[in-house]
Amino acid sequence: MNSIEQLATPALLLDLDVLERNLARMAERADALGVRLRPHAKTHKCPQVADLQRKNGAAGITVSTLREAEVFADHGFDDITWAFPVILSRVDEALALASRIDLGLVIDSRAALETLVTRHDRSEPLRVWLKVDCGYHRAGMAPDSEELLALAVDVAATAGLQFAGILTHSGHAYDAADRDAMRAVAEQERSVMVDAAARIRAAGIDVPDVSVGSTPAMSAVESLDGVTEARPGNYAFFDHTQCVLGSCEPVDVAVSVLTSVVSRMPDHSVVDAGALAMSKDPGPEHGAGMGPIYDEERPGHLHPSLQLVSVSQEHGIVNRPMAVGTRLRVMPNHSCLTVACFDEYHVVRGDTVVDRWKIWRAR
Amino acid sequence: MNSIEQLATPALLLDLDVLERNLARMAERADALGVRLRPHAKTHKCPQVADLQRKNGAAGITVSTLREAEVFADHGFDDITWAFPVILSRVDEALALASRIDLGLVIDSRAALETLVTRHDRSEPLRVWLKVDCGYHRAGMAPDSEELLALAVDVAATAGLQFAGILTHSGHAYDAADRDAMRAVAEQERSVMVDAAARIRAAGIDVPDVSVGSTPAMSAVESLDGVTEARPGNYAFFDHTQCVLGSCEPVDVAVSVLTSVVSRMPDHSVVDAGALAMSKDPGPEHGAGMGPIYDEERPGHLHPSLQLVSVSQEHGIVNRPMAVGTRLRVMPNHSCLTVACFDEYHVVRGDTVVDRWKIWRAR
Repeated sequence: MNSIEQLATPALLLDLDVLERNLARMAERADALGVRLRPHAKTHKCPQVADLQRKNGAAGITVSTLREAEVFADHGFDDITWAFPVILSRVDEALALASRIDLGLVIDSRAALETLVTRHDRSEPLRVWLKVDCGYHRAGMAPDSEELLALAVDVAATAGLQFAGILTHSGHAYDAADRDAMRAVAEQERSVMVDAAARIRAAGIDVPDVSVGSTPAMSAVESLDGVTEARPGNYAFFDHTQCVLGSCEPVDVAVSVLTSVVSRMPDHSVVDAGALAMSKDPGPEHGAGMGPIYDEERPGHLHPSLQLVSVSQEHGIVNRPMAVGTRLRVMPNHSCLTVACFDEYHVVRGDTVVDRWKIWRAR
Repeated sequence: MNSIEQLATPALLLDLDVLERNLARMAERADALGVRLRPHAKTHKCPQVADLQRKNGAAGITVSTLREAEVFADHGFDDITWAFPVILSRVDEALALASRIDLGLVIDSRAALETLVTRHDRSEPLRVWLKVDCGYHRAGMAPDSEELLALAVDVAATAGLQFAGILTHSGHAYDAADRDAMRAVAEQERSVMVDAAARIRAAGIDVPDVSVGSTPAMSAVESLDGVTEARPGNYAFFDHTQCVLGSCEPVDVAVSVLTSVVSRMPDHSVVDAGALAMSKDPGPEHGAGMGPIYDEERPGHLHPSLQLVSVSQEHGIVNRPMAVGTRLRVMPNHSCLTVACFDEYHVVRGDTVVDRWKIWRAR
């Protein structure tokens, strides 16, 4: 086992103590709220992390791409929701995967339903979710639309399809100005979905599941009555955005980028964490910084003034001249995108590297 | 051979006709300017593209990470400059690579020189470049500094090291307001470097090479007298940023992301090209759009109003409701970062897919 000091930079560190605490807390929270947890694996793209989530009560997982679904299926995960409106040109691939695991597909259009019906051989039931727009207005059918009702009726009536329920994502929780606003978004998400389910049930259609989710909404919500599952993802790692939103504290962020100074300039340092390590996610302050830096003196706390102020492809700029070779830990603005820059986690407990876990970042 | 129409989305297309034209033009340009070409492979991360560059006169290649250097070495490229200030924690890896190919390292500090001297076994000469700040002020030593002169003297005098010359990057060409300003940056880069070389030579030190480079500067520069090599990278593919800068026209952009509509909303469409396909590079208009869209009716031309307006992790938003399944081609804001999102190019001539080339995007 190595010390962090021996790692070549840039390196992505995953603090196992923090991860385990985050997973246990969300498991408790889901339990208290009376919902099953189907964590979004797009945050970590890592079977070892998903295994820990399973040990912390996860009933299945969520993914954002079909390739992620295939990777997790190859690693023994057999209950996966692909929570993205099905890509018509990938329906055959999706159906092939659905023949070997329990794969849930999401649609919000008749065109997608028709493609599924045409291509599916109906030998075994295909689980289909209907995506509802709970107020984020990015994708999904309006909860009070005729289209939603008509698609629910048609999915339920189609041999070979199994109506899984309705699903939404409260992405607008990320725009909430404060905790009260976030709580209001979470309650809106709940009530919109419960009402939509009631409307479909009133038409005589069984709605087995009502699925919601975003990390900020899960951190703020007070009740999930009528909801059956939640799909937060970012909570496993958190990041600078979640800190600013109030979903977590800096000490709860499980991933950081270990970087080192390669060039000392009069007014700044150049580090080896650029866009290819951090991503170009502008973060919660929309470009005011590309990542806070941890305070060497106070583990888990941020330095009061040091910051990764900008990134180009491989260069990062830190706002203070420091000796070449100085090592820093940067908190990602958006951990999901930072993780997608790396091939592996260096898993640490304290300053000791205890393992390396592969990140399956291929699309 | 397939048609583009048969590809599953999202997919990264590389137009071979356009690529070949770009490479030939830059080869002619370098020839006319009297400099050797050492293209930056960080743009494409692909041995097949580097092979074409070699056929178009490239004398060696440039890379931004040691992993890239290793990949190209494994594919038979034996003359590589790692154009990033050497990372102290990777010096041993770098020296191992330098023992099997002709690897140039870049330093701009005494700390880096001391590390090289301590670790290098001196069995064969190690090629060392000194990085000069030509006005971009990101990294490099000031051209008139004592430090530059002292390091040049010490590198030249150190057994086991071979002083390769001085190197710079005119990244501030990207901030030029117009072609005249870009030309002025390019001339500044040239004259600063020529003067710095003269100053070092006046101290009795041979300066074998003077290396400059950025795609916009190479597109605008009128003379490179006194410069020996240029290291542009983006010119192989170009992108939206280069179009806005005037380095190229939309018809010259060799890479695009093929995407399809997955959800039709009242005022927009959702496509499957999000941050994991495009990157979050804000582009030349700093977030005004995440990528223009080609006009289906006029190959090589942009649609006058369609645009990828925003991206989240896997979702992209296009500013018009369109039928689910509609296929679009998006021009990247920054092709280097978009390429780094994919595992392979679908190489096309017209609408025919003629090959698939692996992208070695691992760090």
